[in-house]
Amino acid sequence: MPRYVYLDHAATTPLDPQVWQAMKPYCLDVFGNPNSLHLFGDEADEAVQQAKGDILHLLGAKQGKIVLTSGGTEANNLALMGIAQTYKHQGRHMVISAIEHDSVLSTCASLAKQGFTIHYVPADRTGRVRLDELEQALTEETILVSVMHANNETGVIQPIEDIGRLLQAKRLKQGTKTPFFHCDAVQTVGKIPIQVDEWNIDLLSFSAHKFYSPKGVGGLYVQKGIRLSPLLHGGGQEYGWRSGTQNVPGLIGAACALKQCQAHHDQDWQHYTALNHMMRETLESLPGIHLTVSAAYALPTHIHFRCERIEGQALMQELSKRGVAVSTSSACHARHWAPSHVMLAMGFSDEQAKQAVRISLGRNITKEDIHYVLNQIEDIVRTFRNSYVLS
Amino acid sequence: MPRYVYLDHAATTPLDPQVWQAMKPYCLDVFGNPNSLHLFGDEADEAVQQAKGDILHLLGAKQGKIVLTSGGTEANNLALMGIAQTYKHQGRHMVISAIEHDSVLSTCASLAKQGFTIHYVPADRTGRVRLDELEQALTEETILVSVMHANNETGVIQPIEDIGRLLQAKRLKQGTKTPFFHCDAVQTVGKIPIQVDEWNIDLLSFSAHKFYSPKGVGGLYVQKGIRLSPLLHGGGQEYGWRSGTQNVPGLIGAACALKQCQAHHDQDWQHYTALNHMMRETLESLPGIHLTVSAAYALPTHIHFRCERIEGQALMQELSKRGVAVSTSSACHARHWAPSHVMLAMGFSDEQAKQAVRISLGRNITKEDIHYVLNQIEDIVRTFRNSYVLS
Repeated sequence: MPRYVYLDHAATTPLDPQVWQAMKPYCLDVFGNPNSLHLFGDEADEAVQQAKGDILHLLGAKQGKIVLTSGGTEANNLALMGIAQTYKHQGRHMVISAIEHDSVLSTCASLAKQGFTIHYVPADRTGRVRLDELEQALTEETILVSVMHANNETGVIQPIEDIGRLLQAKRLKQGTKTPFFHCDAVQTVGKIPIQVDEWNIDLLSFSAHKFYSPKGVGGLYVQKGIRLSPLLHGGGQEYGWRSGTQNVPGLIGAACALKQCQAHHDQDWQHYTALNHMMRETLESLPGIHLTVSAAYALPTHIHFRCERIEGQALMQELSKRGVAVSTSSACHARHWAPSHVMLAMGFSDEQAKQAVRISLGRNITKEDIHYVLNQIEDIVRTFRNSYVLS
Repeated sequence: MPRYVYLDHAATTPLDPQVWQAMKPYCLDVFGNPNSLHLFGDEADEAVQQAKGDILHLLGAKQGKIVLTSGGTEANNLALMGIAQTYKHQGRHMVISAIEHDSVLSTCASLAKQGFTIHYVPADRTGRVRLDELEQALTEETILVSVMHANNETGVIQPIEDIGRLLQAKRLKQGTKTPFFHCDAVQTVGKIPIQVDEWNIDLLSFSAHKFYSPKGVGGLYVQKGIRLSPLLHGGGQEYGWRSGTQNVPGLIGAACALKQCQAHHDQDWQHYTALNHMMRETLESLPGIHLTVSAAYALPTHIHFRCERIEGQALMQELSKRGVAVSTSSACHARHWAPSHVMLAMGFSDEQAKQAVRISLGRNITKEDIHYVLNQIEDIVRTFRNSYVLS
């Protein structure tokens, strides 16, 4: 009998049953439109304000706003486009890392067509954005720097605090408000306690379905004093920056889930670290398998490796037949497959990039699950080595 | 003891408990990311395709696509912006009605800044868009006509079939694919069985939370052969037109709710018609109260009236204190109040527009609820007439 093991939590997570319960009254009873000026609307609006306050607090923000979006992609689009349109008179230059998520890269490609100059900073072989190159790329025209908190493929945590300090110093020296610092924290919110104030972060994106709350919900933290131009036009909800009726139960769910994540952080971190160690030790011992990044730099939820002469795609599909879900690069990319831009930016070859496999752990994964998966990987690799699938 | 009566279903509806149950497995068990190429992803993707097929069928489409969005506002933005960017080389002219929702009007205002010419067609005193003026406004440069199915404030059903025929004839005569016909059906999907093919509709927007399914979900029907430019950049989901992980449970909920609505359509329609008649009869008999549109032209869910010398805002707030939720214009507008553009486009004065009140019925409303509300309105109007609130 096959065992079903889901090891793709970086792509999406199941809903926490407690979150499901927390959302229920806001679907069935307190269902008003928060923009309505009557008792049902007021009740919904109070819930929205409460949840936003909770999220601000959990992100380490004393002030500022949470703009509710449909997810991380929209939050990233809104941050980049919103700043670009509002502050373009101060400069049309942006600095981003070459290992950002597609939603940042594609938005920048669109901005480039509109006359913005985008400087892409590569990563080093450890998977971290090169701080020295980032600093050199800054000009007086730079209005925004965007670097993710942890990479979605490798799990490598980026030097966010260093970048925040560097930009703060630059702003003080120039006497300007720009360059603003946007951080795509889709992979870390719910895993690492964020401190936007302490880390000098101006805008931060998150996505609820990455931390056991619903799909279709995300948000953008915006520091006090920053203005955005909207992507969606209409009723002027969300401070005029994001029109459309707010997904109240989704927001409630996100706030509830984030509280749960924070409360169980230490325990979860230990759990992930133990499983991660177990996996890495075995994988390293298998012939031809190479871990691509060091555990010292990565989220404990992520194990990223490549297997010589075996395409990641083939390994993933064979594991899927055996009930195990892993990923090659990001889920967004999965259906139109190309070598991972993250691997390429780190200096791997096309061939090596195509061999990449990402395992991402979740709360309910057990040691037995990991044993099962490791056995399957070992078996598949052995079988492949004796067959035609070798690349 | 006050009675709580929610009469603002045009703003939002509670979730149908059956819909809540239908969504549950897709939150907790079949929770995969539909873009993932493994068994959990495939399972989610199958559910997405099934739900989209169901919705297409329920909208009367033999072919075409459903693009999942975060709601009606995003669907309207995507339709207008998406067509504008893709087909601008064929013309930069659009024709819309003056009584459209803010999300259409504001998007058009943004397009006007980008060099598009927008022709606004007024409504007549019955609340219907003037077909003769619409026809005269068309040029060979017109790439899109956008008219809503029923107005959100008055509930007046627009001559959609006539417009569809007119545009179809124009396209045949010109030998062109344009002008396309977009219909914002946010107020009618779930209430009126839509027939996009029969009615010659090319693009149609809907919003799930208007028909007893979740907030944060909507969609755009797009006829086969039409292309769009995306608003959100990223992983290229939804045929490349709308990046971001799809809200799978939301889509499942919307499809389930729409099936329920279709199944109970005749019964619901009768229920609304009876309550509507009851309300109109009493309201008409009260001194100084005027129904703004005829029941013959409006959805049976809507009762739109004005009360001489009493601001709609004041009446709404007083009803709210007594447990009753009604609206002045649209919920989106509620928090920054201005005279309704719909009333103004119909030829009412500023003063009359400020007197407008909208009641919108829902499934669970009873005759007893209506009696209670009518008594409250009568009492409030009497009290106001003897006090300082008179305008």
